[in-house]
Amino acid sequence: MSLLVVGSVAFDAVETPFGKRDKMLGGAATHFSLSASFYTDVRIVGVVGDDFGREEDQVFAERNIDTTDLERISGGRTFFWQGRYDYDLNTAHTLDTQLNVFADFKPKLSDAAKKSRLVFLANIQPDLQREVREQVMGAELVGLDTMNFWIESARESLIETIKGVNVVIINDAEARHLTDEPNLIKAARKILQWGPTALVVKRGEYGAALFTGKSYFAIPAYPLESVFDPTGAGDTFAGGFMGYLASQQKIDEAAMRRAMIFGSVMASFNVEEFGTDRVRRLTHEEINERFRAFKQMTHFEEIPFDRVKASAP
Amino acid sequence: MSLLVVGSVAFDAVETPFGKRDKMLGGAATHFSLSASFYTDVRIVGVVGDDFGREEDQVFAERNIDTTDLERISGGRTFFWQGRYDYDLNTAHTLDTQLNVFADFKPKLSDAAKKSRLVFLANIQPDLQREVREQVMGAELVGLDTMNFWIESARESLIETIKGVNVVIINDAEARHLTDEPNLIKAARKILQWGPTALVVKRGEYGAALFTGKSYFAIPAYPLESVFDPTGAGDTFAGGFMGYLASQQKIDEAAMRRAMIFGSVMASFNVEEFGTDRVRRLTHEEINERFRAFKQMTHFEEIPFDRVKASAP
Repeated sequence: MSLLVVGSVAFDAVETPFGKRDKMLGGAATHFSLSASFYTDVRIVGVVGDDFGREEDQVFAERNIDTTDLERISGGRTFFWQGRYDYDLNTAHTLDTQLNVFADFKPKLSDAAKKSRLVFLANIQPDLQREVREQVMGAELVGLDTMNFWIESARESLIETIKGVNVVIINDAEARHLTDEPNLIKAARKILQWGPTALVVKRGEYGAALFTGKSYFAIPAYPLESVFDPTGAGDTFAGGFMGYLASQQKIDEAAMRRAMIFGSVMASFNVEEFGTDRVRRLTHEEINERFRAFKQMTHFEEIPFDRVKASAP
Repeated sequence: MSLLVVGSVAFDAVETPFGKRDKMLGGAATHFSLSASFYTDVRIVGVVGDDFGREEDQVFAERNIDTTDLERISGGRTFFWQGRYDYDLNTAHTLDTQLNVFADFKPKLSDAAKKSRLVFLANIQPDLQREVREQVMGAELVGLDTMNFWIESARESLIETIKGVNVVIINDAEARHLTDEPNLIKAARKILQWGPTALVVKRGEYGAALFTGKSYFAIPAYPLESVFDPTGAGDTFAGGFMGYLASQQKIDEAAMRRAMIFGSVMASFNVEEFGTDRVRRLTHEEINERFRAFKQMTHFEEIPFDRVKASAP
């Protein structure tokens, strides 16, 4: 298999200024794997309860996502998250969190899973992320996401885990929080000094940035007049990013830059409808159309200023 | 003359986490004209008191800025602003504002000023901006800046003024505030419907965006590890943008895109030292070096995703 993701599979209840859903398929590993499935073969490691039924299985099956390593706890209930977004769609207000079977989640990797070329450790407890990482030492590239909760409650473990991965994919505020550094460029430098070769910073409506030891790359977000439901946008970005990398024979800086665009493209679709609705019915033509739009909206001619020419009559 | 700017010339007292200055040359028209002077001939319309001396004159003279239309009020004092920035350098806390001679400022344009090819109406009362605009009806391009104070206190007049200009150059929060629209893309569309052919939105550390009726262009900010004093960054951006346009025979979208880069480059230098210190001793080599860096940090190869190729062994 090309790409393995370990993380949450959940049911979400979401309310936005534009509508409401009481129960829909969600979770970091769900959004990630759906997005990545457009680029590569994906295997998912996670846990669900027996409220997880045929309809949910169908979503993964449609996208050829391998759920062999998705553990099912008989008599258990799937992780549930309820949130609300106000008119400022940047901030999610959590109304309810029921960890359920996710509370005791111990990722179990099959032999096939352990042979994955690329691995993504979605946002779970850093000790667990490290345990998984140690089982995939042959992976070519391991990516990691986290959240403020772990930065506050398990900081040392998180830093230890970051030391062992290749790419960190977090948001703006998390990068500053993690390093206690208000300047993002300094924060990035600090994180790279811990070990990763690349840091991807997600900036929501402001786009995303890629830092490596010797380069900086930044792109705007795809301009959207209406954001319907931002839930899962970050995981969808990561799925596009990692999925695209998994599709490439050579994972170099140029591939990473294109992966940033594909990640942004996927996230831009994700927020247009509730949950996984939009991404599930995406086409490669739609993806490539927005990829090309990114080129259009960032292109300028490299003509340095020529004083002599400018002052000619 | 190629470029005319109408706006404030001031003394600033600024305190940042990195240092303090009790009195230094500032004001929107000052920062704008210094920045623009690297690209074109600039004339400044403004007012100062007789505390404005040889040293200040010298700053403009060094950059060949025409101050013939800079009115001097005998017995008056120059506009004074005192502000403080905390560790979050994005927000200026105003400690004192003494309008002094600026309170009764009525821009007076000489015949030469009225013949300017490009005009920039820096942040002043919108009625005054409109009065100036009506005296330069032959100008090829007129740009405008404003601030939240006028959006709140003179909204109708401001919109009337915007209807008569070609380019609006404001920041993110101002664009949303002006249109009462949290989504920036919708806000931009609203502003363009009032009449301007282009809207430039400054986003501080997140870069800048250019909206026209049919296109969108966005760039990151130049990555800086330390921002020393952000005072005048927006005016310095506008100066680079308008100055570069004034240097071009053909002001089309391609020129505007390059102007966005030059504006960002100038602003990136401005914030590296107090007040006008850094920009005053800039060189064209330094400017072009950062211009090229922008190409480096935004470039990616336009290779759409090819499913067949990716799934090949």
